[in-house]
Amino acid sequence: MASSGTKLWGGRFVGDTDPIMEKFNASITYDRRLWAADVRGSQAYAKALQTAGLVTGDEMKRLLGGLDTVYEEWSSGHFQIKAGDEDVHTANERRLKELIGEVAGKLHTGRSRNDQVVTDMRLWLRDAINTLKGNSLQLISTMVDRAAAEIDILFPGYTHMQRAQPIRWSHWILSHAVALRRDVEKLDETLRRVNVLPLGSGAIAGNPLAIDRELLRKELDFDTISINSMDATGQRDFVVEFLFWASMCLTHLSKMAEDLILYSTKEFSFIQLSDAYSTGSSLMPQKKNADSLELIRSKAGRVFGRCAGFLMILKGLPSTYNKDLQEDKEAMFDTYDTVDAVLQVATGVVSTLQVNRIAMEAALSPDMLATDLAYYLVRKGVWSSFLSMNHGQCSLMLYSRSHIDIPCVQDILKPEGCLTHQYTRYRTWMQEQKLDM
Amino acid sequence: MASSGTKLWGGRFVGDTDPIMEKFNASITYDRRLWAADVRGSQAYAKALQTAGLVTGDEMKRLLGGLDTVYEEWSSGHFQIKAGDEDVHTANERRLKELIGEVAGKLHTGRSRNDQVVTDMRLWLRDAINTLKGNSLQLISTMVDRAAAEIDILFPGYTHMQRAQPIRWSHWILSHAVALRRDVEKLDETLRRVNVLPLGSGAIAGNPLAIDRELLRKELDFDTISINSMDATGQRDFVVEFLFWASMCLTHLSKMAEDLILYSTKEFSFIQLSDAYSTGSSLMPQKKNADSLELIRSKAGRVFGRCAGFLMILKGLPSTYNKDLQEDKEAMFDTYDTVDAVLQVATGVVSTLQVNRIAMEAALSPDMLATDLAYYLVRKGVWSSFLSMNHGQCSLMLYSRSHIDIPCVQDILKPEGCLTHQYTRYRTWMQEQKLDM
Amino acid sequence: MASSGTKLWGGRFVGDTDPIMEKFNASITYDRRLWAADVRGSQAYAKALQTAGLVTGDEMKRLLGGLDTVYEEWSSGHFQIKAGDEDVHTANERRLKELIGEVAGKLHTGRSRNDQVVTDMRLWLRDAINTLKGNSLQLISTMVDRAAAEIDILFPGYTHMQRAQPIRWSHWILSHAVALRRDVEKLDETLRRVNVLPLGSGAIAGNPLAIDRELLRKELDFDTISINSMDATGQRDFVVEFLFWASMCLTHLSKMAEDLILYSTKEFSFIQLSDAYSTGSSLMPQKKNADSLELIRSKAGRVFGRCAGFLMILKGLPSTYNKDLQEDKEAMFDTYDTVDAVLQVATGVVSTLQVNRIAMEAALSPDMLATDLAYYLVRKGVWSSFLSMNHGQCSLMLYSRSHIDIPCVQDILKPEGCLTHQYTRYRTWMQEQKLDM
Amino acid sequence: MASSGTKLWGGRFVGDTDPIMEKFNASITYDRRLWAADVRGSQAYAKALQTAGLVTGDEMKRLLGGLDTVYEEWSSGHFQIKAGDEDVHTANERRLKELIGEVAGKLHTGRSRNDQVVTDMRLWLRDAINTLKGNSLQLISTMVDRAAAEIDILFPGYTHMQRAQPIRWSHWILSHAVALRRDVEKLDETLRRVNVLPLGSGAIAGNPLAIDRELLRKELDFDTISINSMDATGQRDFVVEFLFWASMCLTHLSKMAEDLILYSTKEFSFIQLSDAYSTGSSLMPQKKNADSLELIRSKAGRVFGRCAGFLMILKGLPSTYNKDLQEDKEAMFDTYDTVDAVLQVATGVVSTLQVNRIAMEAALSPDMLATDLAYYLVRKGVWSSFLSMNHGQCSLMLYSRSHIDIPCVQDILKPEGCLTHQYTRYRTWMQEQKLDM
Repeated sequence: MASSGTKLWGGRFVGDTDPIMEKFNASITYDRRLWAADVRGSQAYAKALQTAGLVTGDEMKRLLGGLDTVYEEWSSGHFQIKAGDEDVHTANERRLKELIGEVAGKLHTGRSRNDQVVTDMRLWLRDAINTLKGNSLQLISTMVDRAAAEIDILFPGYTHMQRAQPIRWSHWILSHAVALRRDVEKLDETLRRVNVLPLGSGAIAGNPLAIDRELLRKELDFDTISINSMDATGQRDFVVEFLFWASMCLTHLSKMAEDLILYSTKEFSFIQLSDAYSTGSSLMPQKKNADSLELIRSKAGRVFGRCAGFLMILKGLPSTYNKDLQEDKEAMFDTYDTVDAVLQVATGVVSTLQVNRIAMEAALSPDMLATDLAYYLVRKGVWSSFLSMNHGQCSLMLYSRSHIDIPCVQDILKPEGCLTHQYTRYRTWMQEQKLDM
Repeated sequence: MASSGTKLWGGRFVGDTDPIMEKFNASITYDRRLWAADVRGSQAYAKALQTAGLVTGDEMKRLLGGLDTVYEEWSSGHFQIKAGDEDVHTANERRLKELIGEVAGKLHTGRSRNDQVVTDMRLWLRDAINTLKGNSLQLISTMVDRAAAEIDILFPGYTHMQRAQPIRWSHWILSHAVALRRDVEKLDETLRRVNVLPLGSGAIAGNPLAIDRELLRKELDFDTISINSMDATGQRDFVVEFLFWASMCLTHLSKMAEDLILYSTKEFSFIQLSDAYSTGSSLMPQKKNADSLELIRSKAGRVFGRCAGFLMILKGLPSTYNKDLQEDKEAMFDTYDTVDAVLQVATGVVSTLQVNRIAMEAALSPDMLATDLAYYLVRKGVWSSFLSMNHGQCSLMLYSRSHIDIPCVQDILKPEGCLTHQYTRYRTWMQEQKLDM
Repeated sequence: MASSGTKLWGGRFVGDTDPIMEKFNASITYDRRLWAADVRGSQAYAKALQTAGLVTGDEMKRLLGGLDTVYEEWSSGHFQIKAGDEDVHTANERRLKELIGEVAGKLHTGRSRNDQVVTDMRLWLRDAINTLKGNSLQLISTMVDRAAAEIDILFPGYTHMQRAQPIRWSHWILSHAVALRRDVEKLDETLRRVNVLPLGSGAIAGNPLAIDRELLRKELDFDTISINSMDATGQRDFVVEFLFWASMCLTHLSKMAEDLILYSTKEFSFIQLSDAYSTGSSLMPQKKNADSLELIRSKAGRVFGRCAGFLMILKGLPSTYNKDLQEDKEAMFDTYDTVDAVLQVATGVVSTLQVNRIAMEAALSPDMLATDLAYYLVRKGVWSSFLSMNHGQCSLMLYSRSHIDIPCVQDILKPEGCLTHQYTRYRTWMQEQKLDM
Repeated sequence: MASSGTKLWGGRFVGDTDPIMEKFNASITYDRRLWAADVRGSQAYAKALQTAGLVTGDEMKRLLGGLDTVYEEWSSGHFQIKAGDEDVHTANERRLKELIGEVAGKLHTGRSRNDQVVTDMRLWLRDAINTLKGNSLQLISTMVDRAAAEIDILFPGYTHMQRAQPIRWSHWILSHAVALRRDVEKLDETLRRVNVLPLGSGAIAGNPLAIDRELLRKELDFDTISINSMDATGQRDFVVEFLFWASMCLTHLSKMAEDLILYSTKEFSFIQLSDAYSTGSSLMPQKKNADSLELIRSKAGRVFGRCAGFLMILKGLPSTYNKDLQEDKEAMFDTYDTVDAVLQVATGVVSTLQVNRIAMEAALSPDMLATDLAYYLVRKGVWSSFLSMNHGQCSLMLYSRSHIDIPCVQDILKPEGCLTHQYTRYRTWMQEQKLDM
């Protein structure tokens, strides 16, 4: 067997251990975040062992008590990580054994690191998703409130970044809110796939010791139980799905941020950010930079990178657990932290930005009304032959004809105009967002 | 206005038009695949125009008849694309006008290219998804059949590409089938988000002409109606979601392909592909290359590239329609074609590969049984102190003790052994796959 | 051996061949673009065979003559692809045999498809890179010409999309030109790695027949010869490197396009595109959409997708040739076509856009001069204590003090002002761009 | 101006500051790694200010002395980060002012955060690249040593993961070494583009205060000076280029790792890793998992994710500095750390793995010799008509003909055989690797 004393080829000396390899291999610096999930999973498993007759009632109590102590040490910040604790699971096991002695080892029975780790991750991510869902709904609610309150403000709607038609400011706000609503819907679907119990799958071939997985499911509050032990321990689809969810959600917020950055330029001057979300420049006092929005805009890239990187890892793998999967955790944690912050900052930005109504309405230049005027005339029956012609040309003709009485913007757009025709549906939808909170 | 005669700076001459720009801009070479969806969408819109009193009953009939002719020309391969037909929508309009005259122009009324295009895409993708769902279910069904028929074959289960524990060959097959089943579940969810009617959203600000969108929805068989016109015309989430779905689905098939490529090496010799799915080498007659599996393995990368590329485009955009979105169609078509082929080829491969049972069972070396033997002894109550010890050490000790009667593999694994403990659940699951077809 | 008659599991029937697999496997639809490189490579190899004594002088002549005919058939559009021609190499071989008989087979001697294909790709890409280099230099030259001619136009320089300091319009143009210049430098480096001869590497283990690779190198005008046959036939680094080069180059042009799209909004109104590069909207006659720029902006995503997808494929592979590598060609061709078009369209856009000098200079609001005024005063020695203070505050103070004579913009900025201090270096650099053409 | 007291829409309360935003905005937790570069850059700038007459000789000495103290505090671990130190530059400035008073503020003169930050990053990355180059060369050297020492070991070369032809073990090693050598070449090219001085570019429009950039260049040992101030402060090409370099380099090492993982399976049994680079399984004592190689294999994905994410951010930006660029640093640091560890662990693995020569040579089954036998016969002139035939068929015929004397493997392969024909070139190349160290 290769060991120290092995002949070396050119490289630096390596004995039985290589400190660089040990650091490379260790995950405790980041997977310690799983501590609570790990304790909770172990407690459920201790109960299942007792039910299966593999530990006695007394042993179970000692296991549960020891795990309670481990939990308390972590939550109070007193848990000591020691040399050799390469991951949080090893650390918790080591500590449990210090606390309750050899019986701690029985917690292994029929459980493998493979099903333990993935159970911990699913428990953690489930909570994380619920937090993000709450943050998303708060942002949507903020947008809906603002849309309701400012529904009378008009400004240009753009396509190709060119002024197209007058729209309501609220219509713009809600265009982003409906996208976020879809994200919440997708997050619920992802959650259903996260909330599946893998514990009891062993390393690869299942748990042969008559462990009651239904009991485990109830204890840990999972919706369902995984069906195939190889898939259960080797797949990380639920992580990738979450990473991609985050990429799309933040792409939506990047789009909104891009609009707002544009609207806050000197040239547009439609909005002004609160001081809390922008920074000045000592060198250029006239500037107010929308740092918050630029950071939001950037995070979609960061999170997509996590998704792309981890999917590339999965793409190169055969079945079941391979150490490559260790990349799952940093990607998951960093993505959660990022989305969590972005949603809260976005809520703050949307809550506090000020709208410059005068500049918005001043931007509604008459030439923008071509389309709406044409449709107005169609509705009035004034221009019956219009329908088979080029709309734009028609309205240009209208502008140049003095004998047609061109109505004011408000008349064109009210009451049956293009801006209000979806109003009733909106009200229902906006009401629904409230109920969801 | 800038036009021919503009002073040029160094570059090649450009007049009112630039042929390279025109080619760069045109999409007819690929978006022609939308022809049927485009005709269908226009026919529904013609009916809605009539209901709204914007065209007469007679005009509607002429529109519908003309569109029928356009449809027949496409389906019979006689539709002529002409210079100036930059996309399929322009081509269909131009042809309709040739067929029925000026009234064709009324089809524009209140409809914009923006809501038209995205409606066509959703109609097309809905059909495409249904085809892929059928292909996926056929592959799953093939796998389930094979798993049922070959359930008695044992071979090594691997983790870290090292032999770990004996498993059933069927367990391996089903580990991939359950992943595909999740993909089908996700595809259904994606379909729900695809199957939303955007028609009636205009360019950005909605349709002001009292078009009955509920009538359009029914005509085109959509589940629901989009709520915000800016979102409806500017978002391509449904495309990205489909592209990512495909990336994950093909990553699953890449994983299966990687396993099978490994199993078909000389060194493993567990399986042999059918001639239809492998190629020989004229230079090396001993070789049989698993080309089909290597191609399957590669396609996850191709499709992910489409997803990453298109998401990068979306990430850089502000709200509403920008021409950048034109990249949506090639990504969607190519991804569909790729997944469609992969699923069918994978079904063929799984259907026809031959299993080398002798080699599989020969690979079940005694040292692989350490874990299962340990658990066997736990179940038998032979080794009570085992539970607090290192399992592997235990079983090594067992091997070295002559006074313990070590059972044969079959006894270790049967009847309550690790390979069968999920058998009942499997049967139910496998039965369900049939009902779904 | 598995063949027709194999028992099938559920799937559609598959005999010795599967038409879907054959289509899945074939590459002739796209690799036909390699025809000229393939003929050229074969002609060089025929000469080397003769030198090595493996074919006679007469046989060589027949091979060369036959290949000339194949070349002419392709270039005149008369080459017939037949059923069974799965790739361009097979097609050329088949045709050569039809033309000159059995001696055609000698072209195989010591050559494998593996070294043949990669030689063809390198020949093709070398030409493609030279074309792209020419296009890039033309664009740079156009930019430099324009910068030289319009050097007196001032407008706001932006950071964070907020007006920061007055700059020259030329300075903006050249900020993009220097980025492209770096791209050309990188392209030259990539070219050096493309221009390496792999022919003579066989399938994996080299060519054992005393083929003179130096002769092949000279015939095919490669710079150097690959050193390791496994690497030479199995690596596609040169393709990935090209794909990534394209991703960065188009990211630069996306950045320029984004600026120009912004500058062509109604709100900025700094530039107006030529009609050849923009489109109007029939519905909204006031609009002029910068389609060309939006397409340019999108292409970075497309090309990055090709790069990401292909790198993901490579990431999952072991050494040497695997069929997965077949994805290399479509990625390479599509990327070339895309960059080729983008560079030419960008040249057209830059050549023909019109600058609105009045709007540009009107945007130089006095508050933007804070920084430059402060520096002006430092230079004049007026404000010695300035240096340890916050610059912005200083200049605000200056604005509010009537007893200080604030110079006009031109005085602040000239002649030693911030806009001109790099002028001499620019002139040298701009001159160099000319010499390079 | 928006501030506390602003009416809020639904969201959580936000006053003049939002603690979540402040944390979101701060970079000190990671950019502190730039401390040494930041001090060094400031010292050079202080000298340039003195040369330009903007600070006195005495002031310069105070600045330099204070900066020396800051440097010592960091290097001894005593530097105190305080609330409000949002980044390392602010922290250093704040500390300098504490140490030397108001004169510290003069360091601002003409320098902006934009050119300061990017100068620091280039200084840091230059050192990092030199470290990685050293690590790469050490790995190559280890491979070359091993290849030289074990040049007589033969084993199967694989294509499509199927045994193809006998090759030398050294040939396999060197196939990876030559790929790494290309990586070193590319790293040198990247370094040239990193090693360009941006200092003196100001925020966007250059430095107007007659700062001697050539003096700065010499002080900081840069190769050249950036030419355009907008490009210099707004581009991060050098970061992306480094990230992509890392992606390709680690893809090479992933390929090598994949081979070695395969070779270390029970089925191949060609190599055995040192204990330092593999782990056992308590549950399965027969296993020895190649954790080191699996981790190496995964890191290409991680690093590619960083590259893809950051490029996606750049793709969405207009010119010059935008806060989105703040993502550059974590990507750069994490990529460096990852590649640094991978190269060292790979060196350790290659240094210490043991080769199982018996298993390797046993895998050279006679059917693998078809190609080489055919070429042997061609060389011997035995089979003249061979050249126009299918090689594989020929050798099969040879096998079946008893009257042809089939030589032993060694005779086929020696001395002019396919394995040695590149030997002389190798020797030269291998020698060169030594000189490079």
